[in-house]
Amino acid sequence: MCSQVLINPFCKGCVIFSKSLARRPLANSSWIRTLSHGTQSSNNHDFHDKSGYENSKRLMITGFGAITLAGLYYYFKKNIPTVWAHESKENEVNTVAREPGSFVEGLPVYSSDDVAKHCNESTGVWISYKSGVYDITPFIKIHPGGNKILLGAGGSVEPFWSLYAIHQQPGTLALMEKYRIGNLTKGEEHLAMANMHDPYANEPRRHPVLVVKTKKPFNAETPSSLLVESFITPTDIFYVRHHFPVPDVDLSSGNYSLEVIGLDEKHSLNLNLDQLKTAYAPHSVTAALQCSGNRRSEMNRVKPTKGLEWGQGAIGNAVWKGARLRDVLLTAGIKDSDENENWHVQFDGLDADPTNAPYAISIPLTKAMDPRGDVILAYEMNGEPLTRDHGFPLRVVVPGTTGARWVKWLTRIEVSKNESESHWQQCDYKSFNPSTDWDKVDFSTAPAIQEMPVTSVVCEPHDGEKVKLKKDKLNLRGFAWSGGGRGIVRVDVSIDLGKTWHVAELLDPVKLSKQWAWTRWQANLPVQTTGQETEIWVRAVDSSYNTQPEGMEHLWNMRGVLAVAYHKIKVLVEEN
Amino acid sequence: MCSQVLINPFCKGCVIFSKSLARRPLANSSWIRTLSHGTQSSNNHDFHDKSGYENSKRLMITGFGAITLAGLYYYFKKNIPTVWAHESKENEVNTVAREPGSFVEGLPVYSSDDVAKHCNESTGVWISYKSGVYDITPFIKIHPGGNKILLGAGGSVEPFWSLYAIHQQPGTLALMEKYRIGNLTKGEEHLAMANMHDPYANEPRRHPVLVVKTKKPFNAETPSSLLVESFITPTDIFYVRHHFPVPDVDLSSGNYSLEVIGLDEKHSLNLNLDQLKTAYAPHSVTAALQCSGNRRSEMNRVKPTKGLEWGQGAIGNAVWKGARLRDVLLTAGIKDSDENENWHVQFDGLDADPTNAPYAISIPLTKAMDPRGDVILAYEMNGEPLTRDHGFPLRVVVPGTTGARWVKWLTRIEVSKNESESHWQQCDYKSFNPSTDWDKVDFSTAPAIQEMPVTSVVCEPHDGEKVKLKKDKLNLRGFAWSGGGRGIVRVDVSIDLGKTWHVAELLDPVKLSKQWAWTRWQANLPVQTTGQETEIWVRAVDSSYNTQPEGMEHLWNMRGVLAVAYHKIKVLVEEN
Repeated sequence: MCSQVLINPFCKGCVIFSKSLARRPLANSSWIRTLSHGTQSSNNHDFHDKSGYENSKRLMITGFGAITLAGLYYYFKKNIPTVWAHESKENEVNTVAREPGSFVEGLPVYSSDDVAKHCNESTGVWISYKSGVYDITPFIKIHPGGNKILLGAGGSVEPFWSLYAIHQQPGTLALMEKYRIGNLTKGEEHLAMANMHDPYANEPRRHPVLVVKTKKPFNAETPSSLLVESFITPTDIFYVRHHFPVPDVDLSSGNYSLEVIGLDEKHSLNLNLDQLKTAYAPHSVTAALQCSGNRRSEMNRVKPTKGLEWGQGAIGNAVWKGARLRDVLLTAGIKDSDENENWHVQFDGLDADPTNAPYAISIPLTKAMDPRGDVILAYEMNGEPLTRDHGFPLRVVVPGTTGARWVKWLTRIEVSKNESESHWQQCDYKSFNPSTDWDKVDFSTAPAIQEMPVTSVVCEPHDGEKVKLKKDKLNLRGFAWSGGGRGIVRVDVSIDLGKTWHVAELLDPVKLSKQWAWTRWQANLPVQTTGQETEIWVRAVDSSYNTQPEGMEHLWNMRGVLAVAYHKIKVLVEEN
Repeated sequence: MCSQVLINPFCKGCVIFSKSLARRPLANSSWIRTLSHGTQSSNNHDFHDKSGYENSKRLMITGFGAITLAGLYYYFKKNIPTVWAHESKENEVNTVAREPGSFVEGLPVYSSDDVAKHCNESTGVWISYKSGVYDITPFIKIHPGGNKILLGAGGSVEPFWSLYAIHQQPGTLALMEKYRIGNLTKGEEHLAMANMHDPYANEPRRHPVLVVKTKKPFNAETPSSLLVESFITPTDIFYVRHHFPVPDVDLSSGNYSLEVIGLDEKHSLNLNLDQLKTAYAPHSVTAALQCSGNRRSEMNRVKPTKGLEWGQGAIGNAVWKGARLRDVLLTAGIKDSDENENWHVQFDGLDADPTNAPYAISIPLTKAMDPRGDVILAYEMNGEPLTRDHGFPLRVVVPGTTGARWVKWLTRIEVSKNESESHWQQCDYKSFNPSTDWDKVDFSTAPAIQEMPVTSVVCEPHDGEKVKLKKDKLNLRGFAWSGGGRGIVRVDVSIDLGKTWHVAELLDPVKLSKQWAWTRWQANLPVQTTGQETEIWVRAVDSSYNTQPEGMEHLWNMRGVLAVAYHKIKVLVEEN
């Protein structure tokens, strides 16, 4: 599915949207809506009287560009060490000395219409960036994201630097120049940006203690020294992982509802938030939420992977309250039955990419229907209504399961025989072995990450810290967690490279099953000598006696997910 | 609970049986029954007209001796390297040159009555072996099995060599001489063996291909090259793991029944096999059964552990058919309820130790009641009635869970708020970190092993084999399995110490959940050079993306369970 051919809808003879990419009308996306209809007030946007269609068309072109550039970014990042060196010798001016997208004397000049004519493999695939025109046809076959790159064909990729800040890396831009074929007609350079509203203009305020990984979309983690301070992570410092701008739902408008497609149309539901709160008994669950990519930075030390550079703080523990999904699905005609045991439940968020494809994902129906599965449609987090950053007004809470499944700004649920066809379900949040890279991966061979393996972290001290002993002992604190509700039964710590192991004290109550929450631990270890570097290892064991692999080397995977090896840090133990 | 004081019932003022050790009347144990009442025909036993009580008394004395000696065996095995060396210098004659249990000139002479008077810590704890009398008081505190050793106080341990062949090791016997204090009155040396019937005289015949680890009790594994030949392991070559002699149930006698203690006495059931077959719908489950100690021999290479020296063959995959335990418990008044979610289901087998304590174990009630848990009371294995070696007429099948929970010769089920108090539940089948040894272990700190972690094995070729390439490729075959119904989603193989990994082909269908069966795999790997040793690594990934730790070193535990590191073998690749 990841190699499905997607075509720029403004290229002749194209299908505008595939069902799987954009099921919902444009107006369902606040991002698109803002841009195409101007229905949300924003004093600083500069919409004028162009039709919504025209505006959405423009955005869609830029959107496709973003997808293209995301691919370029991944490709370039991966190839920087080799391609850059190669290019430096062969064609230094072409890739290094020139300002990316600047006018280059002597190259042919093309209009934006010329660029638009090159929108598929038979015509060649061109894109523009500032004054530059690029033929990226040779890149298509090696694009990690498959044919999706064709969505960007024939247009400018430029507006997307405002959406995907992650692309604004000198290396990425410089290497794009390798595909440079010409200059854009003078005066057309800024066409793509004209009338462009910043979809990130209406983001919520965030706590400054969060460690920001990307601003647009916003991704930030909690400092791990704060994580261990309390069993419940305060909402304001809880890690945030977004793929797109944050939807802004105004409940008073009456526009928000949750659509539930059950067994058949007769059983389908349409619930507003009040109905959800009153028709179904509220249920509270204390559960840790962790990003599949937490601790990726440790894996990147083996070899770079593709993804946000998370430290150890893309995890938090909260009390979630909402309606049991099981209860909702029962009223939608779903039964406890062996017949549907291989079915799935799909979730769509209000957040969507520029093609209007919502962030969408699925989980096995058995998890949703399990009376002990504790899947809820949460409207509260830590005793308060959800914040916008955590999915207001409604998010799915799938305890024991990776954060990617906990869809925020939930607007649609569908029970189906198949998994979600979304990019996020099919072509992301999966893991492969270290010898599988983007050029040869077949995403269909791996299952979507649902339950996560056991992990543990030393939060205090932090890597590289200078520490003083207390009563000749080194004080350590951290957390451990495992997926599937498997409780942490032991945390082992070693300060002599595994020659001896100390059992840490578990600070939070643990059940052997349905243990959705994390478990914090502490250990006070005798240290014989000071003034030298000490390496600290921690690993946890869960109630199925799963434990962590020793190192990241053999866990390495191109996407940098499931970085669950022993956490190893070095500290300098100082004289008291 | 493991330090519970147990006292030889023939020592003055002792409690004869603790509830937890021997709930059932003596006659329920075929072993005791054979010896005490002679109810089973055996032409070669030499019972005479002594009362059943006297016979059972004798057996119990010897039984306690066995427990003592089991402890001695563990202790000595652990300490052989150090104690032996120490003794060799200090007192070589005492421990090495003398035939264990032989008459020693110059030592005091004690009668068996004298020995019997020393049966607790205040009197000192003596035992006899052949002509030797031993004061093992100093050994009590360091006995790995805790105070259980006191059960053997005041009697001869000798008869138990015929029951526990594992003790017949020169090192164990020689080191026992360290505790030698005297000689037994002449003529009393063979008293303990007089009239002794061999409880292993009535064992079933076994297939000669089984690799025998101990004969009495019988423990044997399947050669791993045979394991991989078929998805279903034939019953006759399926591994066997016994703790005691094999019960011989004669259904025609009408004596066999299954007692089910449910919510209260009103709901208790007593079912014969026909009732179980007719009152409950039969349900078939294909599930792998694996011993907690499978692959222990690999862990022993790090440092010796205590247990049977299993290779990789203490696992098999079979079709089991029987009544759903859930259905039985529902008729015994157990309900689906949050109230009982921390309860347990205890199982007693007809096999029992010499104190008449049955092999007993428990599992969480939630597993038993889970409609998707597939726990059955099986009366068929691979389409035939269970064989005696596999629990005829009834065994519990707990898919996804370690073999220790699959109680054979099932005779009693009890739902309770607590786990089984048996030795097997409380003080065995648990794991600790490598720095926890017998002298400081607290068994209550670890949960009983239930679900098992993911494992994988190379079955072909075997370690040390000389192999020829086929079309320049090295052909590998093996199996992988994970507990909790987590399907195997990937098997990785490396022949260059993990620098590159090849994805193996999975030969059997896999589900992501309820995958109780194992998954066989094969890989054909290109090998560049022949004539040299090649190391092969295999590791598996399950549907929760758990994978195996790299090595046994940090997995090591004193009991040698859960040896689930990468399987690593070396082969010599020969010129074609």
